[in-house]
Amino acid sequence: MNAAYRTLLARFARIHTIAEAQAMLNWDAAAMMPPGGGAARGDQLAVLAGLAHELLVAPEIAALLDTADAAGDGDEDGWGVANLALMRHAHRRATALPGDLVEAQARANSACEKVWRKARAARDFATVAPHLDEVVRLAREAAQALGAALAMSPYDALMDGFQPGIGAADVAPIFATLEAFLGDALPRVEARQKPPRRPEGRFPEAHQEALCRRLAERVGLDFSHARLDRSLHPFCGGTQSDIRITTRYDEADFAQSLMGVLHETGHALYEQNLPRAYARQPVGQAAGMAVHESQSLLIEMQACRGDAFLSWLGPVLRQAFGGDQGAYAPENLARLWRRVARGLIRVDADELTYPAHVILRFRLEQALIAGDLAIADLPAAWRAEMERLLGVAPRDDAEGCLQDIHWYDGAFGYFPSYTLGAMAAAQLMAAARRDTPGLDAALGGGDFAPLRGWLARQVHGHGSRLGCNDLLRAATGKPLGAEDFLAHLGARYLA
Amino acid sequence: MNAAYRTLLARFARIHTIAEAQAMLNWDAAAMMPPGGGAARGDQLAVLAGLAHELLVAPEIAALLDTADAAGDGDEDGWGVANLALMRHAHRRATALPGDLVEAQARANSACEKVWRKARAARDFATVAPHLDEVVRLAREAAQALGAALAMSPYDALMDGFQPGIGAADVAPIFATLEAFLGDALPRVEARQKPPRRPEGRFPEAHQEALCRRLAERVGLDFSHARLDRSLHPFCGGTQSDIRITTRYDEADFAQSLMGVLHETGHALYEQNLPRAYARQPVGQAAGMAVHESQSLLIEMQACRGDAFLSWLGPVLRQAFGGDQGAYAPENLARLWRRVARGLIRVDADELTYPAHVILRFRLEQALIAGDLAIADLPAAWRAEMERLLGVAPRDDAEGCLQDIHWYDGAFGYFPSYTLGAMAAAQLMAAARRDTPGLDAALGGGDFAPLRGWLARQVHGHGSRLGCNDLLRAATGKPLGAEDFLAHLGARYLA
Repeated sequence: MNAAYRTLLARFARIHTIAEAQAMLNWDAAAMMPPGGGAARGDQLAVLAGLAHELLVAPEIAALLDTADAAGDGDEDGWGVANLALMRHAHRRATALPGDLVEAQARANSACEKVWRKARAARDFATVAPHLDEVVRLAREAAQALGAALAMSPYDALMDGFQPGIGAADVAPIFATLEAFLGDALPRVEARQKPPRRPEGRFPEAHQEALCRRLAERVGLDFSHARLDRSLHPFCGGTQSDIRITTRYDEADFAQSLMGVLHETGHALYEQNLPRAYARQPVGQAAGMAVHESQSLLIEMQACRGDAFLSWLGPVLRQAFGGDQGAYAPENLARLWRRVARGLIRVDADELTYPAHVILRFRLEQALIAGDLAIADLPAAWRAEMERLLGVAPRDDAEGCLQDIHWYDGAFGYFPSYTLGAMAAAQLMAAARRDTPGLDAALGGGDFAPLRGWLARQVHGHGSRLGCNDLLRAATGKPLGAEDFLAHLGARYLA
Repeated sequence: MNAAYRTLLARFARIHTIAEAQAMLNWDAAAMMPPGGGAARGDQLAVLAGLAHELLVAPEIAALLDTADAAGDGDEDGWGVANLALMRHAHRRATALPGDLVEAQARANSACEKVWRKARAARDFATVAPHLDEVVRLAREAAQALGAALAMSPYDALMDGFQPGIGAADVAPIFATLEAFLGDALPRVEARQKPPRRPEGRFPEAHQEALCRRLAERVGLDFSHARLDRSLHPFCGGTQSDIRITTRYDEADFAQSLMGVLHETGHALYEQNLPRAYARQPVGQAAGMAVHESQSLLIEMQACRGDAFLSWLGPVLRQAFGGDQGAYAPENLARLWRRVARGLIRVDADELTYPAHVILRFRLEQALIAGDLAIADLPAAWRAEMERLLGVAPRDDAEGCLQDIHWYDGAFGYFPSYTLGAMAAAQLMAAARRDTPGLDAALGGGDFAPLRGWLARQVHGHGSRLGCNDLLRAATGKPLGAEDFLAHLGARYLA
């Protein structure tokens, strides 16, 4: 290892350590901070972001990267080579954008997001439209600059910021297959499914929280390195050695908090099991947002909403909450947690219809970035797509194009990750089952060790040494595809 | 305002914003962090400290300071001049120490503090003695470098890091007066005081917390900009717009948590009322640790342990906790919260004997920094001073020189601040009474508005525009002295 690479390791470790501080401050803002702390917190996060950016674009970084590349450096078992390539990629992205564009985006996104909160509450798209227009204009400019630097199309350069290695050309045919499947399957599932019996009673927050904690531990979360708290929007934050997951509780309904915590625990396991030897290096981080989402959905959707685990969970719920006994029968829990419905709101969608929400956004955001869809035409385009895909129409824009924060905060190219993650989860689960006899029997006993071990070896332990498709090839024998996801949906909803 | 001063304002705001991030991460480490997060948190704080230091010692800062000074800049009502002087002072302190000494201190202090935790638990000074020797050696070296840069004695340069403007020559005669008073007063107080009746029962944490919150609000803490949480060692942290106070609860005894929260609320009020126009400038910060401690002790010791407030608090406690009615009589609360005892542990000491603990440390740490006291002789010197000052002797070093973290963590020159703060509190309270008719009547009705208003005007609102003695002269007509503190002790314990 030569001096240039060693210096780069130290520089990137420092940059990542700043990102850890940002992660803790973001968690605090969502889970702890009193309302009056918001303005100062924004300044703190902006200063840390500025410092990290300065370190990344420092002129000597380019020279160090060249020297390390020329020396053929960093080749310990492929980890060093991958790390160096990821450093180069991060540097290329950071230097692609002129400073005044980054600042203009930060200002426009922040202003638009504030107006969006009011516009959504007032169900009034018109007030936020000019702000969104500016946000899209700047995002397009950034996408073009990033695309030029990375030799990608502008939209792919945006996707690359969330899930490297997967572009629109990979996604479009997969989504077309999904759409065709959905058109056929949805009416049949609706015709077959039976309504669940809703557990009745009051489920005190403290009881729900204790159960959530117990389930997260059983899945494998180590609370000597983690916390579970409350926030308006559940998420997994913090750092590898100090993971912070959150949920919210409804005392009339435990179904949301429980599955929410299992979802975030899937994210947390990934972070917890990333390779410690590269803890603060690019190669030691998760392999992208789609892969991250595959880990949460694998735990929540594949494992915990599956028959085996529900047969274990039923008696546990009966013991924890008492009351309505029949509601805890595993068959009823399956009806409860696998109810399919044509809805208007993405975050409330079930596993089967969720891809429709993502397909809609994927198509519209490509058109926005390409300049083929005017902001003024967005509400109508949304309604038309929604009717075409799910046969339902929003009564107003709060149920339509105002529902998600992403675009209003400048995030384009993120939405596909949700459904790519769902497909990767199914593909990984199928491979885990093939490789691991007794996997479902273990889940039926509330034992996650076999699944967890497979994930740690095949996914978590690789960090981002392999790209998304190489990771899937190594773990499942093929690149990302819809096949296993469709087989899973067919087996669960139509068998 | 010329360009140099404007640039300095931006630089120092950035440095302070990093300090805000550090403050939140320190709070989190004490109040929230799971045990496994400690190592990474240490790295995060070290990186932020390094970044802030780099910004402060950047070569252009010296030039900017010279330019701004030459331009006679920053003179808006004295605020700018004071701010510029404080910038210069901070820069002088930061550049006085060579980088390798700062690093050696960070390493030695951290190693020593770890060994100290075990040594204290094992009551075994010998194992930590070589570490403390190294810590003292480096502190002495740093003190000499700082003293040379600031034209002060080495020990005064250390004191200056906690409470600028007060040196050992100011403190020594005041402490001699205090010592003489104590020798005379302590036996007389012991002979007069009557034992309190201890409230009996179980005082659930949730009830104590609700009451603590209510009292903190009544004193003036704004919970839209603050939180109250739990930690092993109570403290006031966070930032001006997001203050975090902590306490700990004992369900058999509410006396500690309640007075602890009132103490931290005193600190919090100071932070909350600092001048917002200079929020991230040196002149907008508190005027030093002694002045900070004066604010906590003024609320806790002067106001809340005084007869007027206890007469209001008695019925409030009776209503909150029920049970043992007689224990809540104001006379009994006075006995409970003003009990005097010759103890060995500083943090458990009462208002009257506390100065003896500080005088002991002030003398021994001066000798350590001067090289007049060898580490091997520290335990015996401690025992001898303790017997001389309070007539009690530690059974082992855990009750003696191992009890406080300060020295083992490299903090020398801090201890005097506690007692200087107690004296300043008495001096300020006497002045507030003179200036504010009806102050005690208001406290007797649980109304802190008159006291709070006086403090905001006379102390909080000045930031560090005035040095400690100038602040006291403006507010009380004289520099820091023991007179009002002794009068207070006489009136409370011997009248």
